[in-house]
Amino acid sequence: MNTLGHIFRLTTFGESHGTAIGGIIDGMPAGVEINLEEVQRQLDRRRPGQSDIVTGRQEKDKVEILSGLFEGKTLGSSIGFIINNTDQHSHDYESMRHCFRPSHADYTYQQKYGIRDHRGGGRSSARGTASIIVAGAFALQLLKKLGISICAYTSQIGPISLQADYHKLNLSTVDSNTVRCPDTQTASLMEKYIKDVRSEGDTVGGTVSCVITGTPAGLGEPVFGKLQAKLSEAMMNINAAKGFEYGMGFAGAALKGSEAIDSFITDEDGNVFTQTNHSGGIQGGISNGEDIYFRVAFKPVATLLRDVETINDRGEKTILRAKGRHDPCVVPRAVPIVDSLAAMVILDAILLNKTSRI
Amino acid sequence: MNTLGHIFRLTTFGESHGTAIGGIIDGMPAGVEINLEEVQRQLDRRRPGQSDIVTGRQEKDKVEILSGLFEGKTLGSSIGFIINNTDQHSHDYESMRHCFRPSHADYTYQQKYGIRDHRGGGRSSARGTASIIVAGAFALQLLKKLGISICAYTSQIGPISLQADYHKLNLSTVDSNTVRCPDTQTASLMEKYIKDVRSEGDTVGGTVSCVITGTPAGLGEPVFGKLQAKLSEAMMNINAAKGFEYGMGFAGAALKGSEAIDSFITDEDGNVFTQTNHSGGIQGGISNGEDIYFRVAFKPVATLLRDVETINDRGEKTILRAKGRHDPCVVPRAVPIVDSLAAMVILDAILLNKTSRI
Amino acid sequence: MNTLGHIFRLTTFGESHGTAIGGIIDGMPAGVEINLEEVQRQLDRRRPGQSDIVTGRQEKDKVEILSGLFEGKTLGSSIGFIINNTDQHSHDYESMRHCFRPSHADYTYQQKYGIRDHRGGGRSSARGTASIIVAGAFALQLLKKLGISICAYTSQIGPISLQADYHKLNLSTVDSNTVRCPDTQTASLMEKYIKDVRSEGDTVGGTVSCVITGTPAGLGEPVFGKLQAKLSEAMMNINAAKGFEYGMGFAGAALKGSEAIDSFITDEDGNVFTQTNHSGGIQGGISNGEDIYFRVAFKPVATLLRDVETINDRGEKTILRAKGRHDPCVVPRAVPIVDSLAAMVILDAILLNKTSRI
Amino acid sequence: MNTLGHIFRLTTFGESHGTAIGGIIDGMPAGVEINLEEVQRQLDRRRPGQSDIVTGRQEKDKVEILSGLFEGKTLGSSIGFIINNTDQHSHDYESMRHCFRPSHADYTYQQKYGIRDHRGGGRSSARGTASIIVAGAFALQLLKKLGISICAYTSQIGPISLQADYHKLNLSTVDSNTVRCPDTQTASLMEKYIKDVRSEGDTVGGTVSCVITGTPAGLGEPVFGKLQAKLSEAMMNINAAKGFEYGMGFAGAALKGSEAIDSFITDEDGNVFTQTNHSGGIQGGISNGEDIYFRVAFKPVATLLRDVETINDRGEKTILRAKGRHDPCVVPRAVPIVDSLAAMVILDAILLNKTSRI
Repeated sequence: MNTLGHIFRLTTFGESHGTAIGGIIDGMPAGVEINLEEVQRQLDRRRPGQSDIVTGRQEKDKVEILSGLFEGKTLGSSIGFIINNTDQHSHDYESMRHCFRPSHADYTYQQKYGIRDHRGGGRSSARGTASIIVAGAFALQLLKKLGISICAYTSQIGPISLQADYHKLNLSTVDSNTVRCPDTQTASLMEKYIKDVRSEGDTVGGTVSCVITGTPAGLGEPVFGKLQAKLSEAMMNINAAKGFEYGMGFAGAALKGSEAIDSFITDEDGNVFTQTNHSGGIQGGISNGEDIYFRVAFKPVATLLRDVETINDRGEKTILRAKGRHDPCVVPRAVPIVDSLAAMVILDAILLNKTSRI
Repeated sequence: MNTLGHIFRLTTFGESHGTAIGGIIDGMPAGVEINLEEVQRQLDRRRPGQSDIVTGRQEKDKVEILSGLFEGKTLGSSIGFIINNTDQHSHDYESMRHCFRPSHADYTYQQKYGIRDHRGGGRSSARGTASIIVAGAFALQLLKKLGISICAYTSQIGPISLQADYHKLNLSTVDSNTVRCPDTQTASLMEKYIKDVRSEGDTVGGTVSCVITGTPAGLGEPVFGKLQAKLSEAMMNINAAKGFEYGMGFAGAALKGSEAIDSFITDEDGNVFTQTNHSGGIQGGISNGEDIYFRVAFKPVATLLRDVETINDRGEKTILRAKGRHDPCVVPRAVPIVDSLAAMVILDAILLNKTSRI
Repeated sequence: MNTLGHIFRLTTFGESHGTAIGGIIDGMPAGVEINLEEVQRQLDRRRPGQSDIVTGRQEKDKVEILSGLFEGKTLGSSIGFIINNTDQHSHDYESMRHCFRPSHADYTYQQKYGIRDHRGGGRSSARGTASIIVAGAFALQLLKKLGISICAYTSQIGPISLQADYHKLNLSTVDSNTVRCPDTQTASLMEKYIKDVRSEGDTVGGTVSCVITGTPAGLGEPVFGKLQAKLSEAMMNINAAKGFEYGMGFAGAALKGSEAIDSFITDEDGNVFTQTNHSGGIQGGISNGEDIYFRVAFKPVATLLRDVETINDRGEKTILRAKGRHDPCVVPRAVPIVDSLAAMVILDAILLNKTSRI
Repeated sequence: MNTLGHIFRLTTFGESHGTAIGGIIDGMPAGVEINLEEVQRQLDRRRPGQSDIVTGRQEKDKVEILSGLFEGKTLGSSIGFIINNTDQHSHDYESMRHCFRPSHADYTYQQKYGIRDHRGGGRSSARGTASIIVAGAFALQLLKKLGISICAYTSQIGPISLQADYHKLNLSTVDSNTVRCPDTQTASLMEKYIKDVRSEGDTVGGTVSCVITGTPAGLGEPVFGKLQAKLSEAMMNINAAKGFEYGMGFAGAALKGSEAIDSFITDEDGNVFTQTNHSGGIQGGISNGEDIYFRVAFKPVATLLRDVETINDRGEKTILRAKGRHDPCVVPRAVPIVDSLAAMVILDAILLNKTSRI
């Protein structure tokens, strides 16, 4: 099950220390002009080595599009792409061949398959999310033409949380700092916190928020294809994601109905809006045309840069000292992944919705 | 898109005020003895009118199994079932034919389809979750034979939250009170709160927690079929669900890696366990054999029993006074729905995992 | 796997001697007026007891639509339906509880599932095709509004084959005789042949041809969703189908390219046509706007009305004498099934094709 | 829709004159030793330039496996692979940029997508079947370990048809002649016929037969996943396929039931067999353990090596003279494609069947 989506679909492959990773985008509509530099720019937002608060690995993550484009436009056929694995330090991982890192996928993969590629996490590596970026970049370019924009940003790092409502933020400044928080002051605190934690050989979690504007009403399916369910499924497939909430989210559990309902209003042209947006732009599983917003929680990276006691595949105790180059916090690099998955889900919903009436 | 699952699949149909609701269970393994009284018992846990803190509608929700069983055992063929709609007060809804209730699906359905059944929410009604209960009851009976148990319970109602860790609760007492909270004292507070809120013509939200024990390691797929993603997708399809978290969840965003990793230990027989379970029983998208636990947030019911200002389908303001019989809080009746969806997801993962090796 | 289709999808259930059979139609576009009498009329074309050359069983096959319609129009939600099993002579089958009928599914179901409903073939019964008729009837009504018509007819019964090209037939006369052959003279021969064979306690095979007119160019997907592949898959799911061919079919294997290519021509308005139609309206897996035509082969019914030697489930020889009421030939009743599946495939392709461009 | 299969799945990409073609194999069980030379050997059976009766293009079709293998064994993760396009003579096709070749996909792609890659047929090129060979080669290696063997062979070229029943053929000699017919004398006639036709600038059709031995009983799903339906769907996705039949096939339409049923027999160990095998190893959609056999018809290649009159994209008449290097007959190179798709379908059925009982 390496496929996501019903009409706009991404299927991926690749172990972090194999020859390459990549994927196939299926269901991309024909005739869409694609800016490949923009695709690469999105990849660069995710790539290691981009700043002093992420892993020092220097993968260039250069994508090569192998099919589906002709003279700059999509053909409607499937789009194959690869990203070569170049900066592998596979020997860093030899000590992990028989060792299960705590809170990683080493043990579960071994149990499921009876075999695993121990180098860099193999298929479980977050490196695989680069393929998501590529598919997301295609989707984002089409959505932009349709007037839809998606903006994810860092809203929490460890105990430092961005309190402001997204309406009060200048979302165009997301990339103006390395932590991708659109509030300069909070961003500084977050960057400092990440560096402090890293200096202790430790890591830290956080949250990413995302706002989608410009969607038409009607996206999502009534029962088992609710838009929030598809968004949640997509986000919970990101490595280290631990939670998803949209609209009022978990806070809504404490509210009364009278505090939570969104009253309708109309403008002078008769267009319908809601006065508030506790619903997060989705009602009954279907978009209502208001902003869609949600938040994803990420746990701290499980690879500590200090000695950790664990067991090997014979059940014996052993000491593990990670030699690879690791992120102290996944959140800044997770921001474009959230953008990408959101774009994929929304585009899939748009395509499916084209079939709801003749 | 009225289907959930890849091998064990449920497809449903039914508007709340149509002839019947129902569904088809596909992929149920053959030869499993099914206790139909137990299926009905699960339905009774969800049905309206079961206590004094839920809606007063008196639907019996009697399920009729139409196929797939022979002499008490599953045939391996698809299992069709219906639940007749009996206690409909369709005239209660005539006033809503041209009216969009705030924070309901009336407006979004109309926008998506250009037509809707205005009676009782039609396809968007929570009544449809009865079909989930039926499929879940089949899955639960098979899981029980495999040594797997699933227990959902109410963990928050409005501001009243159950603080205790699930290990300290007696989960067998879930049904001992009407609110389905396995702590007598907290349950009393919750029941009182629901009644107070109802007396104001208002409603309230809450959360449901769920614990799954006895799962083998190996369930879930590496990339786009992560077990948490499938659980999250399923839960976020429940009406009124606003958030999902598993393991340390959103709280994990504030933690350091050194506080969050789960060290491995072995018992004298060489069996592997983790000392803590911040991971919530899933690592790298795949179950590790520890307890799986998660939490789902529900917003307050949008139908208030008081005058509410809204608009009609010509964009004109109107006053709405709900005449139907409505729940002040969905949470107590959501508990068996969470059980059921969890069972469906776990069974689907077990079946899919049978194909991971030859 | 009881589901067919990607967007327009039918999921079915039901054993022939259970309570009911039925299904769920998913993906039917909203706002389509449905004539339920016309749905029943299609069912009547398939039902047993309709003429003196089919089984004498007197099932009324009355369909009950349970959801998805509102004031005569489709809601866009899933359409649940049931057909009660009324004229069951289950005792006719008691002798078959431990007996495997030759060339039936008794043995293979037992091997696959370790359990089976021996009464009337259970899930393997051709009775299940009634559900296909219902879904097909919905699709046919929508296709008609789009200017597409589908006409299947009997083109061979045993050694008697209809030689004329379909252009020379009056396809509106299909239902004017019991065998559903749109050539009166050939129809008489076929009817006589069926009766003769039945009088010997024997059965006979045949073929059904089908012509689809009015389809736009562009239906079908390039690689694994070729329109002919989807048509073939659908047809080969009909009980007793043994072969599928479209356009020049098997005869094309003997041809030279110069005899087989379809030259393009244009009319005065610049519309493009092909001079011949060896391709059967599909080129490269995608419809070209010409008539689509294909043919399906059916084997003779395996249930003979004479003593047949077989084995029981202990591997012992036994003599079987079918006591049920059986068709001497499935072909006349297969004609509306072919219509229905063709309609379902074409509608699914139309809906999917709406997503090929933005 | 560039994906085939439910559990064992292949997704492909690639235009014939793009950078590369390739695909992703999903659902391959873990721990299977793979001989990559054998994969390449299968590709060589399909590749152009292999003999003097196929196209003279000299593509090496060298596959590069990018993931999913570790130290010679499958990991259970998805297997990405590419085959570079090397011997492209794209300029041969410049004249076709605005021209629709008769009986090709040029016109239908243009109608569907509004854009196409005119070079070598783009996505519609038979070159894409190389990806099928790769996936099939993986499946074949696993099936071999399970005691299942698949053998396709040429059974007809134009008017020359192999009359012998497959039991009388030595199927191990399939590759002993260029036409892949396991009867030396018939093979000579076929080769001569192909050369004669080519010398006229013409092309010819034919049929491929296939025999699958060693399958267990129980493969296939009852209603919409019948094994013959899945085989038929797969085969009808091969470029130029016009028909599919299994077991008695179209000939069965002329038979009586008494001539067509397969009586059961048991051997001294109580194993059940059928005396004849008109059913082709499948009854009620499910394999019965006998040999599965089927036949696929292929039309003559549409590209003639002579002047052909056609139209351009402005609807004007034009003369086309194919300059590329083309096959006079696809059948010899289709043989390994049939092998491959059969293997994929059977393996998918085996994996799915593992879920039919607990």
